[in-house]
Amino acid sequence: MTAPLKTVEAETAAVMPEIGQRARKAARALALAPTAQKNKALAAIAEAIRTRKADILAANAEDLAEAKRNGANAAFVDRLALDEKRVAGMASGVEVVRELPDPVGEVTESWTRPNGMTIERVRVPLGVIGIIYESRPNVTADAAALCLKAGNAAILRGGSESQRSNRAIHEAIVAGLAEAGLPAEAIQLVPTRDRAAVGMMLAGLAGNIDVIVPRGGKSLVARVQQEARVPVFAHLEGICHVYVDKAASLDMAKSILLNAKMRRTGVCGAAETLLVDRTVATTHLKPLVTMLLDAGCEVRGDDATRKVDGRVKPASEDDWSTEYLDSIISARVVNGVDDAIAHIERYGSHHTDSIVTDDKTAAEKFLREVDSAIVLHNASTQFADGGEFGFGAEIGIATGRFHARGPVGAEQLTSFNYRVRGSGQTRP
Amino acid sequence: MTAPLKTVEAETAAVMPEIGQRARKAARALALAPTAQKNKALAAIAEAIRTRKADILAANAEDLAEAKRNGANAAFVDRLALDEKRVAGMASGVEVVRELPDPVGEVTESWTRPNGMTIERVRVPLGVIGIIYESRPNVTADAAALCLKAGNAAILRGGSESQRSNRAIHEAIVAGLAEAGLPAEAIQLVPTRDRAAVGMMLAGLAGNIDVIVPRGGKSLVARVQQEARVPVFAHLEGICHVYVDKAASLDMAKSILLNAKMRRTGVCGAAETLLVDRTVATTHLKPLVTMLLDAGCEVRGDDATRKVDGRVKPASEDDWSTEYLDSIISARVVNGVDDAIAHIERYGSHHTDSIVTDDKTAAEKFLREVDSAIVLHNASTQFADGGEFGFGAEIGIATGRFHARGPVGAEQLTSFNYRVRGSGQTRP
Repeated sequence: MTAPLKTVEAETAAVMPEIGQRARKAARALALAPTAQKNKALAAIAEAIRTRKADILAANAEDLAEAKRNGANAAFVDRLALDEKRVAGMASGVEVVRELPDPVGEVTESWTRPNGMTIERVRVPLGVIGIIYESRPNVTADAAALCLKAGNAAILRGGSESQRSNRAIHEAIVAGLAEAGLPAEAIQLVPTRDRAAVGMMLAGLAGNIDVIVPRGGKSLVARVQQEARVPVFAHLEGICHVYVDKAASLDMAKSILLNAKMRRTGVCGAAETLLVDRTVATTHLKPLVTMLLDAGCEVRGDDATRKVDGRVKPASEDDWSTEYLDSIISARVVNGVDDAIAHIERYGSHHTDSIVTDDKTAAEKFLREVDSAIVLHNASTQFADGGEFGFGAEIGIATGRFHARGPVGAEQLTSFNYRVRGSGQTRP
Repeated sequence: MTAPLKTVEAETAAVMPEIGQRARKAARALALAPTAQKNKALAAIAEAIRTRKADILAANAEDLAEAKRNGANAAFVDRLALDEKRVAGMASGVEVVRELPDPVGEVTESWTRPNGMTIERVRVPLGVIGIIYESRPNVTADAAALCLKAGNAAILRGGSESQRSNRAIHEAIVAGLAEAGLPAEAIQLVPTRDRAAVGMMLAGLAGNIDVIVPRGGKSLVARVQQEARVPVFAHLEGICHVYVDKAASLDMAKSILLNAKMRRTGVCGAAETLLVDRTVATTHLKPLVTMLLDAGCEVRGDDATRKVDGRVKPASEDDWSTEYLDSIISARVVNGVDDAIAHIERYGSHHTDSIVTDDKTAAEKFLREVDSAIVLHNASTQFADGGEFGFGAEIGIATGRFHARGPVGAEQLTSFNYRVRGSGQTRP
């Protein structure tokens, strides 16, 4: 059932500005909604997802059938597929967000001026958040919940392959909003498959989108970062490093490295490069590399690394700046912590990097000088996650330097303003 | 001495990318520079401005002569002109910034996770800041000092009319940087008058500018906001309101209104619209309007306001959204605090708004619901200023919701990262 192209374009051009205007209006209502009302909506959304499970799974089955007809590969189908457990997970995810503290209204600083005025810095919602995502339908619920918690309206634009699933989940969200007396337009789903809608969102819908959060693969994020005329919370890639210092315990280095690389290879916090201090190349390099190879990880190394095990393949210059997201690691020897920092500065992506060492001075230098969103000492890079940080949930991880950096949770989806209380003060 | 157009363009295309690369490199050095070294540079810059006073004034005299030859008006000449007092003011402004606390390295939050990892959120510099300004040469020193304090590199692009003055001031800055052992490229002045340089800065110089701060009139800010592909700290306009509630003391209302409108009419925090609660229109409106008229302020009012004094002119719909920056005010009657908030939401610019009332409930409602960077109770809108907030200095006032909002001081010119200290933790 494909509409004539002209009609689709005309529909997009007509519907998208209205979506923006309705979102802006709803954002105003949400910004002033009390915590209890937002939490009531979140509870009702979780409940609605559970009671509408059959509808959601039926919609998903249709999406899956179409995807298979169109020859989607197994990984794609897995991302798209929902089952009872995944639907239950979505509902409980919304409840986790419900349990989080409400960041809105929090006074983060306050002080009194010599003239007696008190100034408070108070968290307020950001406004309207545009979420552009690919095939995973759970993003519909996850992103909506986190935006709602922080008092923001959301405009969701999921992948066209998952549109029936997203629509069914969105119906549950709308039902939950209605039950709490919040406007349905607080969380809107872009109804068209027309890709032009994405371009209109990236242009900011005439000032009615305040920030874009892309959720998906590198090509989506790259497009969003290149084209967006509004701020973007995202990371293009996570080229994360584990640096094993000369003062590293070998056991700790092995355990951290194995976890950082192999716990899950497809996450942005997975290590992609191992750096080992030349001083301990003779003692540490071989056991670390052998451990990875034995665990099924391909190792691409410099000359020193290739010497310790015949299975190591040669690393090219490109390897140092490649995010494998797979059981592959690049490995090289460096001349101490300064050289490690210089390597990370040159090839890294300012995402997450770790030093393993018992030398406090080297650790503090690394923590201070590595310019990444997350820098760790004696801990795995796979802790790069809002949940692991204690944020309860995250909408993504940002490597930009503005506003949000690192895991983006409810607190990072707020702005602030200044509230000044006086007793008649005028400026001299 | 005008170079052939082709040569100018070629020079811009060649020089601007290099400026970006050098700034990025210098930013890295500055980010790691200790507080004492940055303060030494600031002291040396202030001193160099003083010792080079004659050179600066001579350069300024040439700029002034050219401006007058080109028929510049008096206001323009006043903005461009330096004298001994203004040069001394520039030097002492740099010293004020030197005295500010260094925001870099400040731990703003820290917590421990159940697995024993400690997480710190630490302020780090933003990176490279591009300043695009018009004829005031003092911005060269003011902006450079604030960027330097927060560990940022700066690329300064002043008005072509003040280029000789800017160059002389910049020489003093470079001398100060050198004396402290900091790279000269930390603060660069764009050497070309070619306007294409501005466009290249707005495009972000290939990722080498992290934020743009425009300093100048509305047309400059509008251009920057429309064209910039990197974040912008700015406000387009300050349509600031004073709302006189039914529970306002008339004396306090008069004093705050007179100050908010007339202390200085050309600043962004000057009031542009007076809103008076209908309940007190009979008691408060006339004395307030008469006071303004008697002080030489033109009043453009709704019907109710026109009734109280024959000198009041009729307000058009456009008046409610006009930033006069002059001795003119629009005035109208509203139906209580909700109506005042609705008026501000509709016509305001999210900059600075004030309520005058003795009713705490109305005041708290106004403070909570008016969505502006600064909201005041019983105080003048002219307190919208970094100095008045206790920030010591400001590079401008932002009305965007991202990162910095309200007065932008040294602290707002920083980002942050997370530093995690573990003892071998791996993620389950």
